[in-house]
Amino acid sequence: MSHSDDKPQGDTTPVETAHPAGNAQSGTTAFGVGHIMRRWKRDDMIKKGSVVLRGVALLFSLLAFLIMASNKHGDWKNFDKYEEYRYLLAIAILSTLYTAAQVALQVREISTGKRLFDHRISTVVGFIGDQVLSYFLMSSASAAVPLTNRMRQAADNIFTDTSTAAIAMAFLAFLMLAFSALISGYKLSTQSYI
Amino acid sequence: MSHSDDKPQGDTTPVETAHPAGNAQSGTTAFGVGHIMRRWKRDDMIKKGSVVLRGVALLFSLLAFLIMASNKHGDWKNFDKYEEYRYLLAIAILSTLYTAAQVALQVREISTGKRLFDHRISTVVGFIGDQVLSYFLMSSASAAVPLTNRMRQAADNIFTDTSTAAIAMAFLAFLMLAFSALISGYKLSTQSYI
Repeated sequence: MSHSDDKPQGDTTPVETAHPAGNAQSGTTAFGVGHIMRRWKRDDMIKKGSVVLRGVALLFSLLAFLIMASNKHGDWKNFDKYEEYRYLLAIAILSTLYTAAQVALQVREISTGKRLFDHRISTVVGFIGDQVLSYFLMSSASAAVPLTNRMRQAADNIFTDTSTAAIAMAFLAFLMLAFSALISGYKLSTQSYI
Repeated sequence: MSHSDDKPQGDTTPVETAHPAGNAQSGTTAFGVGHIMRRWKRDDMIKKGSVVLRGVALLFSLLAFLIMASNKHGDWKNFDKYEEYRYLLAIAILSTLYTAAQVALQVREISTGKRLFDHRISTVVGFIGDQVLSYFLMSSASAAVPLTNRMRQAADNIFTDTSTAAIAMAFLAFLMLAFSALISGYKLSTQSYI
């Protein structure tokens, strides 16, 4: 990735030649300019990746919420007659609100460079939020699947199809937030606490 | 935690007085003997905590597996007539096997000091395993809850009670593995990759 990696072996940078014995001895860490540059690049990629993942999670959560909320076709074909679908709707709303708030804060931070909250607190809240909501999304999608399966064995209509679509959206939102939780966890563990 | 923290202000260690300007300037990092000692203590606690959490997860997974597998009371009161319960049993078996293997490897490592697999690979596998299995356990417990709820509205008998117990065990195993995933993620992000 760094320029020093592309150069031939004889043409090492001054920083790398400064600690040849240290590199040979430990063999596990190689601190230098290239290392720090890679770290910066990675941190920048992680910041952007986090916004993109949460943005896509927002999209899928919103879709799950809208699809499930519109799933009313009269008689037994109303989503609010089933606790599984009400649960899915509630979690989709929660997830939409959370991801919207996170994306808004992160976009504001990137564009203005200012932070509304303390960095440490926002990282911890971001990690816990991502992780807890990904568990909730997984839970709500899993709870809604067996009921939909059973209904589809009897009849395949617009109500079961819409439910399936909402479940799929909730599952995709879960995938995005699960990856976002990985990134938040990485950010949490690499920041300094003192 | 460290001894240097308990001493009065005037009695600082040589390492701490060696970089007074650096500490005052950055204010974010304070490398020294106390820092390294704290790091070692923390790493040791984390290693032990990881074994304990996975051991308890093994216990709960095994209980969930045994309770669900014994849940056969004839006619409609057989767990294998319902896909939710079969799913819970499958995940409980998976979780039992995984946590048993992890605990065996970790206990062996602590007692003999030798590692069967490369440290980096086992940390990555441990993190992915913990995280994926905690999602699966959450999913299977959530899937089984609505069916059990519906059955209990009609009749409260030994079959529904046993199902509820198995679901509770799966949920407790999920909690343990979710915390174990946190620890594994921390281990993964603090080790060096070069």
